[in-house]
Amino acid sequence: MNKKAAEEKSGVVLLSGGIDSATTLAMALDAGFQVHAMSFRYGQRHARELEAARKIARSFEVMAHLILDIDLAQIGGSALTDDIPVPGGRSSADMARSIPVTYVPARNTIFLSFALAWAESLGISDIFIGVNALDYSGYPDCRPEYIAAFEKMAALATRAGVEGNPARIHAPLIRMTKSEIIRKGASLGVDFGMTHSCYDPDTAGRACGRCDSCLIRKKGFREAGIPDPTIYAE
Amino acid sequence: MNKKAAEEKSGVVLLSGGIDSATTLAMALDAGFQVHAMSFRYGQRHARELEAARKIARSFEVMAHLILDIDLAQIGGSALTDDIPVPGGRSSADMARSIPVTYVPARNTIFLSFALAWAESLGISDIFIGVNALDYSGYPDCRPEYIAAFEKMAALATRAGVEGNPARIHAPLIRMTKSEIIRKGASLGVDFGMTHSCYDPDTAGRACGRCDSCLIRKKGFREAGIPDPTIYAE
Repeated sequence: MNKKAAEEKSGVVLLSGGIDSATTLAMALDAGFQVHAMSFRYGQRHARELEAARKIARSFEVMAHLILDIDLAQIGGSALTDDIPVPGGRSSADMARSIPVTYVPARNTIFLSFALAWAESLGISDIFIGVNALDYSGYPDCRPEYIAAFEKMAALATRAGVEGNPARIHAPLIRMTKSEIIRKGASLGVDFGMTHSCYDPDTAGRACGRCDSCLIRKKGFREAGIPDPTIYAE
Repeated sequence: MNKKAAEEKSGVVLLSGGIDSATTLAMALDAGFQVHAMSFRYGQRHARELEAARKIARSFEVMAHLILDIDLAQIGGSALTDDIPVPGGRSSADMARSIPVTYVPARNTIFLSFALAWAESLGISDIFIGVNALDYSGYPDCRPEYIAAFEKMAALATRAGVEGNPARIHAPLIRMTKSEIIRKGASLGVDFGMTHSCYDPDTAGRACGRCDSCLIRKKGFREAGIPDPTIYAE
């Protein structure tokens, strides 16, 4: 890792392996940032997400891809880390109304905190996260007011902030619809065949087609008028 | 873990194994909270801190003690996780002037984020952290304005916050001197012989007596007029 180069124009990008983070990565590159991608092995049910993240990072030739182990399963409280069944077949209205059981307590706060630490140790001020408030599936930590509050806290938390160089949290998708994100990603060369969205794939790794994440993905491709490369189990 | 009992009056306490967190734990118990202690194995040089945390948690018969593995060493940027020599023999004025190399980027933000996640999954709203702005050894994330900003961010980050029950971050030591903390801890039955402060103990586990943390500890006991049970190498 070349610290001087990093200081020129580099960004840390949180990369989950889904449509949103892949598009965010492409947008950071398009804006001229050298990308340091960061992913987490956090007791998810499936390694498919991380495999997708690796493929995307490789395909965009990022400067570095750091995968950190953090044991959210020990903390519990979510269908994505516990053995709670993932709900299927919910309508968009249902999703908008309530915070789903797939919500992981404080997940984005934990991810952004690690990104903040890594960015500061590299001398980087720009952090990118692919959160999205419109098709956001009901998570509180995907809203603009949350991102703004994190940024304010971060400015007080770090040496860089105290020394006049606070972290900027970029959430370029925050006001985009899923179809807008897909169109944007496609225009920037994201291979959506590499991305993974499903909360509950079958043993062959096929997306279930029924969980919130699959339903949002299908609708997004339909509305974008772009073919969805995903193979669904149903 | 009994979720109902936890909802009555429970708190998550960040427990490093030092004087400050041990005293904070005793203060939370004294205020009537049932304590869920949380510690981290984060690539520190020494297991002595965690051993101290375990002894303290046991001696106060906490409800639970969760030790999470997080690999800050992969992130780097600090003498506490890297192979940078720890400075010795600095004056108080030196310590106050600059952020030392023992600063771990965004460490308290990472710790508080995990505490926020655990608290929410247990239905707990009260989080305790033993940061201290007076004898704070120059860390930006030990200041009252940082704690206030974290609390604001947390209220927007979580389901509990959205549903009108935001987390409260208690930092009861924040305006206390080290000697006041030692007197308070002693009055609440903290066995300081169990606590560990040194950044750089020798192979026999003896505190170095020279690092910032040892110097602050020695001065604190001296000013408190309480004997320091620590065995120093020098």
